[in-house]
Amino acid sequence: MKKIVLRDDEMPKVWYNVAPDIPGGLLPPLDPQTLKPISPEKLGAIFPQGLLEQEMSTERFIPIPEEVQEIYRIWRPSPLVRANKLEEALGVKAKIYFKNESVSPVGSHKPNSAVAQAWFNKREGVKRLTTETGAGQWGSALCFATSKFGMQCKVYMVRVSYDQKPYRKFMMQTYGGQVVASPSMDTKVGRDILARTPDTPGSLGMAVSEALEEALDREDTNYALGSVLNHVALHQTIIGLEAKKQMELAGDFPDVIIGCCGGGSNFAGLACPFVPDYLEGKKIRFLGCEPASCPSLTNGKLAYDAGDVAMLTPLLYMYTLGHTFVPPGFHAGGLRYHGMAPVISALTREGIVEPVALQQLECFEAGLLFARTEGIIPAPESTHAIRGAIIEALRDPKEPKTILFNLSGTGVIDLPSYDKYLQGELQDYEYPQEDIAKSLASLPKIP
Amino acid sequence: MKKIVLRDDEMPKVWYNVAPDIPGGLLPPLDPQTLKPISPEKLGAIFPQGLLEQEMSTERFIPIPEEVQEIYRIWRPSPLVRANKLEEALGVKAKIYFKNESVSPVGSHKPNSAVAQAWFNKREGVKRLTTETGAGQWGSALCFATSKFGMQCKVYMVRVSYDQKPYRKFMMQTYGGQVVASPSMDTKVGRDILARTPDTPGSLGMAVSEALEEALDREDTNYALGSVLNHVALHQTIIGLEAKKQMELAGDFPDVIIGCCGGGSNFAGLACPFVPDYLEGKKIRFLGCEPASCPSLTNGKLAYDAGDVAMLTPLLYMYTLGHTFVPPGFHAGGLRYHGMAPVISALTREGIVEPVALQQLECFEAGLLFARTEGIIPAPESTHAIRGAIIEALRDPKEPKTILFNLSGTGVIDLPSYDKYLQGELQDYEYPQEDIAKSLASLPKIP
Repeated sequence: MKKIVLRDDEMPKVWYNVAPDIPGGLLPPLDPQTLKPISPEKLGAIFPQGLLEQEMSTERFIPIPEEVQEIYRIWRPSPLVRANKLEEALGVKAKIYFKNESVSPVGSHKPNSAVAQAWFNKREGVKRLTTETGAGQWGSALCFATSKFGMQCKVYMVRVSYDQKPYRKFMMQTYGGQVVASPSMDTKVGRDILARTPDTPGSLGMAVSEALEEALDREDTNYALGSVLNHVALHQTIIGLEAKKQMELAGDFPDVIIGCCGGGSNFAGLACPFVPDYLEGKKIRFLGCEPASCPSLTNGKLAYDAGDVAMLTPLLYMYTLGHTFVPPGFHAGGLRYHGMAPVISALTREGIVEPVALQQLECFEAGLLFARTEGIIPAPESTHAIRGAIIEALRDPKEPKTILFNLSGTGVIDLPSYDKYLQGELQDYEYPQEDIAKSLASLPKIP
Repeated sequence: MKKIVLRDDEMPKVWYNVAPDIPGGLLPPLDPQTLKPISPEKLGAIFPQGLLEQEMSTERFIPIPEEVQEIYRIWRPSPLVRANKLEEALGVKAKIYFKNESVSPVGSHKPNSAVAQAWFNKREGVKRLTTETGAGQWGSALCFATSKFGMQCKVYMVRVSYDQKPYRKFMMQTYGGQVVASPSMDTKVGRDILARTPDTPGSLGMAVSEALEEALDREDTNYALGSVLNHVALHQTIIGLEAKKQMELAGDFPDVIIGCCGGGSNFAGLACPFVPDYLEGKKIRFLGCEPASCPSLTNGKLAYDAGDVAMLTPLLYMYTLGHTFVPPGFHAGGLRYHGMAPVISALTREGIVEPVALQQLECFEAGLLFARTEGIIPAPESTHAIRGAIIEALRDPKEPKTILFNLSGTGVIDLPSYDKYLQGELQDYEYPQEDIAKSLASLPKIP
């Protein structure tokens, strides 16, 4: 047996909300101006009611609307795969399974939330969404989703990616999206930044600020975020809910669950549905693998912080490197974020999630081995999960474990990074100690 | 119902060989030097016995080796999808189904044959394969396949693609393949061409000659071809065999079966398993959609011709534009071939396959509509099948048909072509009348 598939009618019809099951619970988001819990009205200017309810919900299970299920079925349920060839190459008795989220039309797990966010906005009459994107995975997913519901989408794409990585820009446009390089002249934030630093390569934090400003300014437009928030993690739990059914069909259960961590959504999606099993006494280790050069879980501080440079977002209680932190330019663009999803942060605080920091080269090495054994070229982000799985598989030959990791995306659009790795042009990065100390000093002071 | 999937154990365990069912049969390949039927010994210098047996076989069903099945299961069985959203957008009552071959790790149907060819070579002790590739779909598939079996692979890639389309080159290298720009200094053919025309952009015909020369010269090396030949079409029939099972699960049967046609392998793969139904009296139309600017089926001649410029390949009896024909540089690189698979040629001769010539712009328009409705960005090649399906869906509103087409590949690596289309930079091509007349005059004269 190699691959466990579910039929369309076996796809889960609810998402799982981990919030009520987190020991110690979650702290509420704060208003960046008053530093008090933010009012629903203020959040309502950028998010629809349906998503706000999910953001705050204490229900364990939340139904997936039929229209969202219908779009999910374009690629879902996604396969669960036993990585026999990788096991053979490693010479281990450990069993390695992966959930293959790379099969979506845009090549990653991101549409799990993009489709849901687009639908809940559309239901409340919103015709237009703005968002930011770095390398472009999230922007592609949102343009895919809005095209399905006849909505418009405007994406602020970090300038350096806009110029250097045109494929995802083309993908967004093919789905009918509007893409502008950020910082842009379309917003006050953007114009101010360009006036000060006309040659800036941009950053995710700047692009968030621009997308938010436009959503706040325009009546017909809402904002959508691709990770970090509770409702995003919620939508991603379809990954883990499917995986549980599939592991059962395989007659197995994971000892170790692994995902790469940028904002935390793909890891939360796979891991959270197994948290109740952990709380009932099952021995499961949850490993969040992050890049050593952007180590929010392993070297950040658990504190209230903003999600963007201009501090327009609500303040979230999370592990953060500080919202002014600019990570070095490593190739897993989707992991270049200063903060971590509050649900993953809380699970880490409780000792349920173990964070692991990995270097770029060891991850590409793992990705190449995976491509040549299992045949699928993983996204640079996903190679962090693969490296984590390999470390665990090799750990204790006397007690081989059952490992489950999330293959969050394909690396097909990132092939130039593999080329650089093969040419020996990539390097590891020093731990950015001074930058982190500096940006942590800029954390908002909560009374 | 949206998507019909089969579980791993429902994957067909045999391929279907259409040769014995073709009315009028097939003519044997000829030796390009003697112009007589080629000897098995001569073919044995480049192909393994197992594949030669398939090439000549009169058995209807040929078992798929277990090792090949195991690799197929990385992505197979592939989904059959009801294109509801496309139907809605067209406002038709016709039912449109597509077989989604874009889900393979390299993004096309090509590995169906690459895996089989690599395995049969390996079984006979061959450690190394050479091949040619244009835009790179076939080369990627063969590097993927050889990496699975621990074999080496050298790909002669047409220089203009090597320089301008690096992503597939990177993909081949990521799978461990060796890629050289063709013409190269590695072969006599290549050196001769470079001496005469140092600035040549190369062509598929030149690359075939180089790959063949190296396979003929080296004891440890065989040659692999990605389309046209009977055994390639045979391996692709897993597409149609799965689709038959899936249409049955959907409670439907196709009135019209459609594929794009370059060398003919993906169309043969979908269509051939339905030929016995046609011969038993079922009313099925088989439409082969080719580019109007490389119209071998609609404007070529049914004759013996070579597969390459240097006339090193066996002569095949096929619809051809002449082996010296150089098609204009349109964006569906996989359809830029002068000849057509003998099995598709024979089915066309018998009036079973109806050829359709389509223009580039109408195909990209169809591809864009498909991306925005069904959510999957199709390969430029596959847009020809989509355009064909749309024409059939709109044909007769009073008698809506059930249409089945092959989505042979994803367009993710071809996104720059979509960008050019969206920017209005693409054009249709005139029918290349003079070029075709000239190249047809160079057909080998068979006594």
